[in-house]
Amino acid sequence: MLFKLGKHSSSQFMYEMETIRNDLLRMGGLVEKQVDDALQSFLQADTELAQRVLVTEQEVDALEKRIDEECARVLALRQPAAIDLRTILAVSKCVADLERIGDKAAKIAAQGIELSQDRAQPAGQVEVRHIGTRVRAMLHDALDAFARFDADKAVSVAAADAEVDAEYHSAMRSLVTFMMEDPRSITHILKVMSVLRALERIGDHSRNLCEQVVYLVEGKDVRHIPVEQMRALLGRQPS
Amino acid sequence: MLFKLGKHSSSQFMYEMETIRNDLLRMGGLVEKQVDDALQSFLQADTELAQRVLVTEQEVDALEKRIDEECARVLALRQPAAIDLRTILAVSKCVADLERIGDKAAKIAAQGIELSQDRAQPAGQVEVRHIGTRVRAMLHDALDAFARFDADKAVSVAAADAEVDAEYHSAMRSLVTFMMEDPRSITHILKVMSVLRALERIGDHSRNLCEQVVYLVEGKDVRHIPVEQMRALLGRQPS
Repeated sequence: MLFKLGKHSSSQFMYEMETIRNDLLRMGGLVEKQVDDALQSFLQADTELAQRVLVTEQEVDALEKRIDEECARVLALRQPAAIDLRTILAVSKCVADLERIGDKAAKIAAQGIELSQDRAQPAGQVEVRHIGTRVRAMLHDALDAFARFDADKAVSVAAADAEVDAEYHSAMRSLVTFMMEDPRSITHILKVMSVLRALERIGDHSRNLCEQVVYLVEGKDVRHIPVEQMRALLGRQPS
Repeated sequence: MLFKLGKHSSSQFMYEMETIRNDLLRMGGLVEKQVDDALQSFLQADTELAQRVLVTEQEVDALEKRIDEECARVLALRQPAAIDLRTILAVSKCVADLERIGDKAAKIAAQGIELSQDRAQPAGQVEVRHIGTRVRAMLHDALDAFARFDADKAVSVAAADAEVDAEYHSAMRSLVTFMMEDPRSITHILKVMSVLRALERIGDHSRNLCEQVVYLVEGKDVRHIPVEQMRALLGRQPS
């Protein structure tokens, strides 16, 4: 009887852990869609799509709360250890990053709505498209790394983040030059800059997600260190 | 013997919880000092002070990692419940916000170093000083609310954040006007804008800290809701 109870309770626990992981991936999928839609709405001046991004934000916020609640409940009732404990702790950090990525997507969508009135100036479209594509891939890979317990993929996202940062700074510099050459473009360019900034931050948050994947899989805290040091700490070959 | 062991273990546990709380407050104090110094260095063009902010960032990062490690250890070994569990979960969220406030302080200091070469244009100084003062007070009150388990003070910080946001948007609008009237000021104003943005984000993170204080004290999740709804949820009078 005790054995049966134990078994039941343990399979129940496994089910709860699985639910938490699945809910995180669901929240991730939702946020990924938000970023896609926000970019699309900005680049195509599609205000209807932009509105949809703003509405989805509430769903993302609600998921954040629910997942955190599940995590607290499992911690209180199940006293998880080892990889289960690390999963809970990593998920609890990840939901905050996903929520902020959702925030940034909403910011991009809002800028898209404002800009849709003023499509005369295509400045910055190329940069937004390019950096947007890279950052979407980073977010996708980060969620994939989480789903597959893949620390190597996680490290590769951190490497991509460093490249995106460099591209972002170069894009910002060229937009400043554009602004100075044509001051009539100032308000337009400021909006494009804020979209680029949001994208760059999505890249940072995707990197944060990956740091949690490494913690979850390898039990090592790789925050605030450069990629090469990350690789060394994990015993990987330098790239 | 068993009883003694139990007693020892429980006072040891209390000591560990106290250590975690104290470390969080120490990290908070360090970050508060960083924000003070960053603002001071920006307003007084004090590059030496700005350099010190950049150096302290590493200390803040290290504290974040250490506190998270302590939290994971206590969760694994002590299986805390009720308010102890909420404390651990809240602290684990708070360190992320404090670390990001430290990041923003470093950003302000870095802009100060760049601007120190170019002091001709005082545009935006008044706004930075004013919003800076308000945001410092918010961070201070947030940490105070944590130290005193004061949910009401926490709610008042959330109320202040809404006001600061409005002031921030108005300051940004006036800077855009300034830029358009005098395009030679563009690079200068962009730096001031990035300082204001960092300050506004420090306000947001201070609000996040307060949401965790409310969770810790009252066990209620007040994220993503307006202040009035927060007050209602806590059974407080509307302001």
